[in-house]
Amino acid sequence: MIVSLEGSADRGRVTGALAALGLSVAAVEEDRAGSVSLVVGACSAPVEADVVARIPGVRAVSMPRSVHPRVSEQGAVVLAGGVEIGAAPVLMAGPCSAESEEQVSACAAALAPLGVAFLRGGAFKPRTSPYAFQGVGLPGLRWLRDAADRNGMRVVTEVMGESGVGPVAEVADLLQIGSRNMQNFALLKAAGAAKKPVLLKRAMSATVEEWLLAGEYLLASGASGVVFCERGIRGFDTSTRNLLDLGAVALLAHVHKLPVIVDPSHAMGRRDLIPAMSRAALAAGATGLMIETHPSPADARSDGPQAIPLASMAELVASLGIPPRAALRRAGGRA
Amino acid sequence: MIVSLEGSADRGRVTGALAALGLSVAAVEEDRAGSVSLVVGACSAPVEADVVARIPGVRAVSMPRSVHPRVSEQGAVVLAGGVEIGAAPVLMAGPCSAESEEQVSACAAALAPLGVAFLRGGAFKPRTSPYAFQGVGLPGLRWLRDAADRNGMRVVTEVMGESGVGPVAEVADLLQIGSRNMQNFALLKAAGAAKKPVLLKRAMSATVEEWLLAGEYLLASGASGVVFCERGIRGFDTSTRNLLDLGAVALLAHVHKLPVIVDPSHAMGRRDLIPAMSRAALAAGATGLMIETHPSPADARSDGPQAIPLASMAELVASLGIPPRAALRRAGGRA
Amino acid sequence: MIVSLEGSADRGRVTGALAALGLSVAAVEEDRAGSVSLVVGACSAPVEADVVARIPGVRAVSMPRSVHPRVSEQGAVVLAGGVEIGAAPVLMAGPCSAESEEQVSACAAALAPLGVAFLRGGAFKPRTSPYAFQGVGLPGLRWLRDAADRNGMRVVTEVMGESGVGPVAEVADLLQIGSRNMQNFALLKAAGAAKKPVLLKRAMSATVEEWLLAGEYLLASGASGVVFCERGIRGFDTSTRNLLDLGAVALLAHVHKLPVIVDPSHAMGRRDLIPAMSRAALAAGATGLMIETHPSPADARSDGPQAIPLASMAELVASLGIPPRAALRRAGGRA
Amino acid sequence: MIVSLEGSADRGRVTGALAALGLSVAAVEEDRAGSVSLVVGACSAPVEADVVARIPGVRAVSMPRSVHPRVSEQGAVVLAGGVEIGAAPVLMAGPCSAESEEQVSACAAALAPLGVAFLRGGAFKPRTSPYAFQGVGLPGLRWLRDAADRNGMRVVTEVMGESGVGPVAEVADLLQIGSRNMQNFALLKAAGAAKKPVLLKRAMSATVEEWLLAGEYLLASGASGVVFCERGIRGFDTSTRNLLDLGAVALLAHVHKLPVIVDPSHAMGRRDLIPAMSRAALAAGATGLMIETHPSPADARSDGPQAIPLASMAELVASLGIPPRAALRRAGGRA
Repeated sequence: MIVSLEGSADRGRVTGALAALGLSVAAVEEDRAGSVSLVVGACSAPVEADVVARIPGVRAVSMPRSVHPRVSEQGAVVLAGGVEIGAAPVLMAGPCSAESEEQVSACAAALAPLGVAFLRGGAFKPRTSPYAFQGVGLPGLRWLRDAADRNGMRVVTEVMGESGVGPVAEVADLLQIGSRNMQNFALLKAAGAAKKPVLLKRAMSATVEEWLLAGEYLLASGASGVVFCERGIRGFDTSTRNLLDLGAVALLAHVHKLPVIVDPSHAMGRRDLIPAMSRAALAAGATGLMIETHPSPADARSDGPQAIPLASMAELVASLGIPPRAALRRAGGRA
Repeated sequence: MIVSLEGSADRGRVTGALAALGLSVAAVEEDRAGSVSLVVGACSAPVEADVVARIPGVRAVSMPRSVHPRVSEQGAVVLAGGVEIGAAPVLMAGPCSAESEEQVSACAAALAPLGVAFLRGGAFKPRTSPYAFQGVGLPGLRWLRDAADRNGMRVVTEVMGESGVGPVAEVADLLQIGSRNMQNFALLKAAGAAKKPVLLKRAMSATVEEWLLAGEYLLASGASGVVFCERGIRGFDTSTRNLLDLGAVALLAHVHKLPVIVDPSHAMGRRDLIPAMSRAALAAGATGLMIETHPSPADARSDGPQAIPLASMAELVASLGIPPRAALRRAGGRA
Repeated sequence: MIVSLEGSADRGRVTGALAALGLSVAAVEEDRAGSVSLVVGACSAPVEADVVARIPGVRAVSMPRSVHPRVSEQGAVVLAGGVEIGAAPVLMAGPCSAESEEQVSACAAALAPLGVAFLRGGAFKPRTSPYAFQGVGLPGLRWLRDAADRNGMRVVTEVMGESGVGPVAEVADLLQIGSRNMQNFALLKAAGAAKKPVLLKRAMSATVEEWLLAGEYLLASGASGVVFCERGIRGFDTSTRNLLDLGAVALLAHVHKLPVIVDPSHAMGRRDLIPAMSRAALAAGATGLMIETHPSPADARSDGPQAIPLASMAELVASLGIPPRAALRRAGGRA
Repeated sequence: MIVSLEGSADRGRVTGALAALGLSVAAVEEDRAGSVSLVVGACSAPVEADVVARIPGVRAVSMPRSVHPRVSEQGAVVLAGGVEIGAAPVLMAGPCSAESEEQVSACAAALAPLGVAFLRGGAFKPRTSPYAFQGVGLPGLRWLRDAADRNGMRVVTEVMGESGVGPVAEVADLLQIGSRNMQNFALLKAAGAAKKPVLLKRAMSATVEEWLLAGEYLLASGASGVVFCERGIRGFDTSTRNLLDLGAVALLAHVHKLPVIVDPSHAMGRRDLIPAMSRAALAAGATGLMIETHPSPADARSDGPQAIPLASMAELVASLGIPPRAALRRAGGRA
């Protein structure tokens, strides 16, 4: 926001009035004709231009074009498989990896009645070691789609490379880009070209600005919408697996007015803290949660310690205080 | 927790049962006689020993002595000035710096009716530059005490050095140790010797374990109780002033069962995100909040951009959903 | 390393002797028969097994299979375009972006006489914003190859996506994987399949273990060798662009015995600190440097502030104290 | 640096010329009379004002007052116990903790002939746990002074609290402020009041600016000089104990022209990497090293894994390539 002053304005008084609104002045500019403008810092509080225009001494208020214009204009609601993400709390849940048709099927059958709108599960898994389980591949996509369809759910699943965009886009209602690929620009362009909504996880040490610009890549390439997902950033303390940055969630939700989902499972890496952090995420402004569950966590092929037993999901969902069935608000069902 | 197995036990099956309870096995030990024990990782989920003892194949369960025994045994409630911190949500609020008797007085008069139990305010300020305002000193302590007494409030204020412990302990119900002094061991010992309860802020990049051990210094030196305070750690993204680690709050509250206060003002450094993060903090498990307010933030001598205008505090408190007057639960008033 | 003890051994005494060698004991294991083994921590000092075997009380010493066996067995020298990287200091230099045939040509002509073995330059650029200059694309690859060939140099250039592996592998002697793609596992697999040597930059917040495992992906997929490149990790202080982790360089060079290149240009983001950090990198154990230069930094289309003016490169190279022409050691020229 | 332009100047051309010198423009200001000034960013390259003044279109160049004027004016050499720190490489070595008179004595006797100018050793130890060895206290100070005097060495030792300043200042030639106390402002003021030179270790997550301002506290309180000491900052990778930030060392040495010592022992936490990082530190611009050694590391009461065996110190010092006796340059001996 650029606040132009009247010639007679008391600059200090205007600065004080802006500060009282939560707006900090990042720079003062003066043009050749001697008229002064105050440049308001990028991450200041969201204040309507006309409120600022009413401050005595202010001549005009203008808004510079955003560095990520498509993200800035997207709005707070993204439609995915007919579900409005951003309108009311949305739950996404399922196993870390799609391991078998039975496992996926059991998850969907148990989760749908709880109001979980999206079935999650990885068919392709990004694993730190090349020798770790890499996912079951294409059959997993089929299991997810079938199980979701049988239970009136949507599918969100990760696409790991350019060549995977086609098969994943065929079954997923929401394409997931993982943390490690947040700045894989070739993938962002390819995923965007699928013209679908994308769930964009924040990279391990990405700034909010870098995250928004990654979203801009998606929208500029054709994505129908971007839902941001905070899953914890890299920290120095190993008592939790990652460091959940709910301040960034509040910033996206309340200042940038964007839909943001929180994944407390990867953030904490331990199931005992997931209920509390799920509630905290919603309180911070998250529009939904993505939670890993497994019929038998002790047997999970990946991330067992952070999986909520499927049998405990009802209790967890009940503890969130989400209005009944809010999670399943549909605009009409999947075409 | 050390889980000793029966000779005939199936180790894999027991490990699986532990995992299902959220307990990870950090090491396997075998004594000379061949009996095997599973050592459960320090930060695993809190599970009662008798639940584990019931797993088939388990012979006995024992708990090793904590590295911070006094902190481990303290319990979730600390009494300060007759107020039980930990029993019900507690609010602490006031200006960053005590600037004048009028300012302090105005804050107390406005905050007490809102159920704010503790009046905060710095008489001595830790400032990055030696040329920045260093606080008004001793008179500020008097203003805080008098204003608190006139309004039935308690006082929490920072002690910055060994020589300041005496004067601060004379007026404060709760001594505050700031982030920069969390590992100032000379101060921890001196503050503990005052035999009062202490609010211990987490250092900028302290692990949870280091924080608990700093609390152990206080208790070992005589402090009557330690209340932990998360105020944001150092991060790489400047869109918020610090990085609020609510995962650590959940860990302290739910696993270690300790009272923890969150200071969203220093964490965010910008007032627009404070309401959302206050609610998120309570949802994560915080037993209270410490919030900076000022009658006129634009005129504040320190930290103005993060101060909530005093006139807006009623709205903020109302938005927290705390039961009326819960914040002011007293055990009998200040002796 | 697993150190098995004799039945009569004094465990404390052996542990002390190990500590004196820089070896820390991570775990103690005892088998059913009562024989005790000490498990030495993964990142302990590199000590030959026979030195440990001579400690009184030690029965046997065994080495567990590495979690990244191909990386562990690769060795310290990788051949790229006939140049032995790891044998003697290797210089890689060129512009951030290949901007024009003239620019690339001028760089190569000026750098070759200085002993710079590898011409670097991006034809495809990973940019934070989709609206920033994305590189000239395929023609840039041609310019690099031609300029290198005319001057007896090799080419190192970045491959940004699976679909780019073919064209890049056709011209590059050394394929570069950028920081943002270090855990783009689809790209690692595709790049490895080109059967060429790869320069693998460390991700912004990757641990050394994660970096080595990313290298393992490359070797497991067919890469003929992996050269690691430290280019600074994300830090909290903006006085330098990134935080150059020379401790990790020393760890790779001296403990893991792997070839590691340092890119001080991206690490510092400002040219004034590049000479000092180049010398520090070589002192820490780097086997070479990758430095950005430009005929006219003020006109550079990307990263101008960190580019060394081409006219200053001779002075910089001279200050490194590398033996004349050591950088151009060839096994026989490019086939 | 503020660069005022002539009325007819081409702003873009001047900005380009500044960029070519490594100077980035942080802001553009225009006064009421319409004359334009370019504000050069704080951490730009060090360029003399008269070089900038010669750029066509520049009317005048002015330097704003530093936020830490005393530090800015201190200069690169600090005198401690008659030794010029900053003039030639200075070595400081000794045990982590002063454990016994014999241990301290043996260290001094072995180190002095190697050209180690300063004997280090902690009499008071900042330990994370209150139950860990806290140092031998006052007797340790005496052992250090006596051993140093017998061998023509100086003493550097840590002061942990305000009440310790007196006794420590009595024996130390150089007072050490530890990392955990870098922003213990009460201690900085008390230590400065001793009118002696101070070695100021960087806090675990301090920015360079915060570090310089902590130095300003010391000088403003009367310290006769400040020597900065980088000992590694907190990182996310446990393969080294801390993250040695040699970029900050280069910044202090080459841009701020201040004396900076590197402590590779605490930075690495493992002795095998200390020789390489010692050489890297000197190459980056460090004016000296502080190294922990012990007659028998396996028996050390603290930090054994990072101690160089006393018997190996000669080899380490020889590997540094410091000119013989350069470390012991004296201005005349201790008064």
